Amino acid sequence: MSAVIRALVFDAYGTLFDVHSISNACESLFPGKGSELSRLWRTKQLEYTWLRSLMGRYVEFETITRDALIHSCGVLGLALDQSLSIVLMQSYRKLSLFPEVMDALGALNKCKLAILSNGSPSMLNTLVEHAGMDRVFDTVISVDELGIFKPHPSVYALAVQRLNVESGEIGFVSSNFWDISGAASFGFRTFWINRNNVPPDKLGFQPIAVLRRLDELPACLT
Amino acid sequence: MSAVIRALVFDAYGTLFDVHSISNACESLFPGKGSELSRLWRTKQLEYTWLRSLMGRYVEFETITRDALIHSCGVLGLALDQSLSIVLMQSYRKLSLFPEVMDALGALNKCKLAILSNGSPSMLNTLVEHAGMDRVFDTVISVDELGIFKPHPSVYALAVQRLNVESGEIGFVSSNFWDISGAASFGFRTFWINRNNVPPDKLGFQPIAVLRRLDELPACLT
Repeated sequence: MSAVIRALVFDAYGTLFDVHSISNACESLFPGKGSELSRLWRTKQLEYTWLRSLMGRYVEFETITRDALIHSCGVLGLALDQSLSIVLMQSYRKLSLFPEVMDALGALNKCKLAILSNGSPSMLNTLVEHAGMDRVFDTVISVDELGIFKPHPSVYALAVQRLNVESGEIGFVSSNFWDISGAASFGFRTFWINRNNVPPDKLGFQPIAVLRRLDELPACLT
Repeated sequence: MSAVIRALVFDAYGTLFDVHSISNACESLFPGKGSELSRLWRTKQLEYTWLRSLMGRYVEFETITRDALIHSCGVLGLALDQSLSIVLMQSYRKLSLFPEVMDALGALNKCKLAILSNGSPSMLNTLVEHAGMDRVFDTVISVDELGIFKPHPSVYALAVQRLNVESGEIGFVSSNFWDISGAASFGFRTFWINRNNVPPDKLGFQPIAVLRRLDELPACLT
């Protein structure tokens, strides 16, 4: 690496935490439809963050997530009542970590470590506590105080401000290519975790490295 | 209707013009994959407009459309060379009108009529000419001069400025629910053309009427 990376900023949903780990909960409530619901729910959740950000109509990620769930069940013809909605929304606060995450983060302790996420502070705190990661990160940053979601540049700027590290010395790690694009556009050094070997989106920016799993990251930084 | 509607503003892609009419061209080039390619292409095209708008990295709709095509072919494992790309991009300039559009617009001539579209001026001019609609609209408005896509409020404000009609006296017509949401959030009176009877997205806004086809619109305005 040509320049030193002094801080690593991680996306949460899809990068550290497996959003599709919820498909088991979906499957047990809606047999035969779990993975389809999980996929559509995630797609709509992201769409709503982008659309509401553009409309200037921010609501917090918990509301976005619930609205996306309700809509997705409507599309798939699944009868979601309030009790089922509560069950699934609770599951969203207890997503599984990808298996390699803890070891990978343990090997990165020479850098400041942070989460930068669309999640509301309450969702993120529960998620981090549930995963036993309370002491892993120097800071957990939510977009909520800005009232706009990724990939708006102000979100990435918030991490610079909180970490007090120059953007060119911040490595940004995400499985979401659109998030990598936003972070690279802002000026971060980006590492794309491409677990499923999908083609990159064409949004005008490329990561400096593409990894299959998070535990390949430490070797990239030496 | 309680208040007079003095102008009608139409979305182009998906509302007047059938974006999936291109699936025939896709099918002839990639047998068995036409409708899948057409759907993914459209999905990615929209995603890219939202993401680039949020990133502050506008490029014109022609570029977005080509990038979405290239990415979609990559995802589906389809070998798109430059000549095939040119064929499909040309087809995108000659989309079919939905069958009822000309008659419906003919019955609405007491209002000012406009198109408000993400399309670049060159794409829109070709599209309108090819459909024989040169004399139908008072104005064809592209987002291009703003450098941001729908549903950013500045896009809808541009129509107010061009038509010189108050936003509350403008009826906005789209098949795209997210576009309806943006227009309603801005202050237009919105008519959602829901041809495929899909559930509305949950984005905080509702149209004042839901129609199955464009030719139901004239009766809504009397």
